[in-house]
Amino acid sequence: MSSAAVILKPGERLDDLERNQLRIIQNPEKFCFGMDAVLLSGFARVREGETVIDLGTGTGIIPILLSAKTPGRHFTGLELQPESADMARRSVEYNGLEERIRIVEGDIREAAAVFGASSFDVVTTNPPYMTEHHGLANPDMPKAIARHEIKCTLEDVVREGAKLLRPNGRFYMVHRPFRLAEIIQALTKYRLEPKRMKFVHPYVDREPGMVLFECVKGGKSRVRVEAPLIIYAEPGKYSPEITDIYGY
Amino acid sequence: MSSAAVILKPGERLDDLERNQLRIIQNPEKFCFGMDAVLLSGFARVREGETVIDLGTGTGIIPILLSAKTPGRHFTGLELQPESADMARRSVEYNGLEERIRIVEGDIREAAAVFGASSFDVVTTNPPYMTEHHGLANPDMPKAIARHEIKCTLEDVVREGAKLLRPNGRFYMVHRPFRLAEIIQALTKYRLEPKRMKFVHPYVDREPGMVLFECVKGGKSRVRVEAPLIIYAEPGKYSPEITDIYGY
Repeated sequence: MSSAAVILKPGERLDDLERNQLRIIQNPEKFCFGMDAVLLSGFARVREGETVIDLGTGTGIIPILLSAKTPGRHFTGLELQPESADMARRSVEYNGLEERIRIVEGDIREAAAVFGASSFDVVTTNPPYMTEHHGLANPDMPKAIARHEIKCTLEDVVREGAKLLRPNGRFYMVHRPFRLAEIIQALTKYRLEPKRMKFVHPYVDREPGMVLFECVKGGKSRVRVEAPLIIYAEPGKYSPEITDIYGY
Repeated sequence: MSSAAVILKPGERLDDLERNQLRIIQNPEKFCFGMDAVLLSGFARVREGETVIDLGTGTGIIPILLSAKTPGRHFTGLELQPESADMARRSVEYNGLEERIRIVEGDIREAAAVFGASSFDVVTTNPPYMTEHHGLANPDMPKAIARHEIKCTLEDVVREGAKLLRPNGRFYMVHRPFRLAEIIQALTKYRLEPKRMKFVHPYVDREPGMVLFECVKGGKSRVRVEAPLIIYAEPGKYSPEITDIYGY
């Protein structure tokens, strides 16, 4: 792995991903990846030779982690915000991953028109979770765009993801449980049939804060809800499953 | 509570519900209630003065338990199978609950036509879970009818439940997680918006075997997925939550 000299811009830092000596450029003022992205990269299954597109890739965390964790052939990261896409591109170069990962600046709402229908085996996405944004002081801020449905809605992500996938292609998404009914309505509307789901709970006796989906384009209706993923074994101590996903 | 002399028919037995000295008549050859019904009666919320209908009540376990656990004013149990309805009626009499519980023999598919639209505050149901029944040796057997969608489908139950409820009325159902996508599609189609869900796992590290729903007729789309309900703390030993629901 060739590590190019890293050029950080003001406010940026280089974070260790604790896997395969990978590092990622982030700017805490703008947006840093969360546990959601890491858990999705542990949940998604990418087989040898498969091609993947990550919708709303931010600083490229999901394609970078998937390139290390899976034998996928090629990963595309699509990101609307120029600063994030630029950081993602420099992280790909820093890690010497230019042959396996390509970062594209563009709009999720036009993804299928840009890349073509049925052009990927796998779609991953960690989309904005929150519907409301009329109360935001700064709806143009990078954090607001990453968290709220300002530039794209759940339906946009699902519709474009469905178009981008080949028949029987797989769609992986992390989202919030409070939107479960809307999510399942949107997925089934676009024939992305939920096949595997996992709820992520901070503690075993607490409500889930995240939910992971695996859907198959054109699949039969039958879901496997997996055992819950518990983040903390006790306060301040990750569960073995989380430690394993993070690769410590 | 007046306990009438109980007259058991051949094959029947009188089981102790371990709550308020309640007993229920069952016939193990036909069908006995399961943990599903008990958990649903612990999950459902019935307020003072409310009226409830249980769709597919079997031997009446859900209305009998709810009459003890909640301050609901009146409970109707609708059951298609004459033998089950007869056992349920005799259990109601045995427990002296004739003023609060009425058992009606009839078809779920015609429930709204029989009882009228918007006629209940709460609907409960523990419907057949399995879609396939073409392989059954005896599709007319009481157990087959209770477990497989022979006499009514998921959509029938949801559609009639939605019609029977007053606006903002509540729909409680226990079902199997593998049908989650279909269930949510059916519920939202008939404007029964899922508001509260709980998965039931045999052990904390195992897949859920049941899922409980609370829906509000005409509600806004926002679900609260609760902490998981774990059945066994260790092999052979119920968790405190289960012990509490059973009232031991």
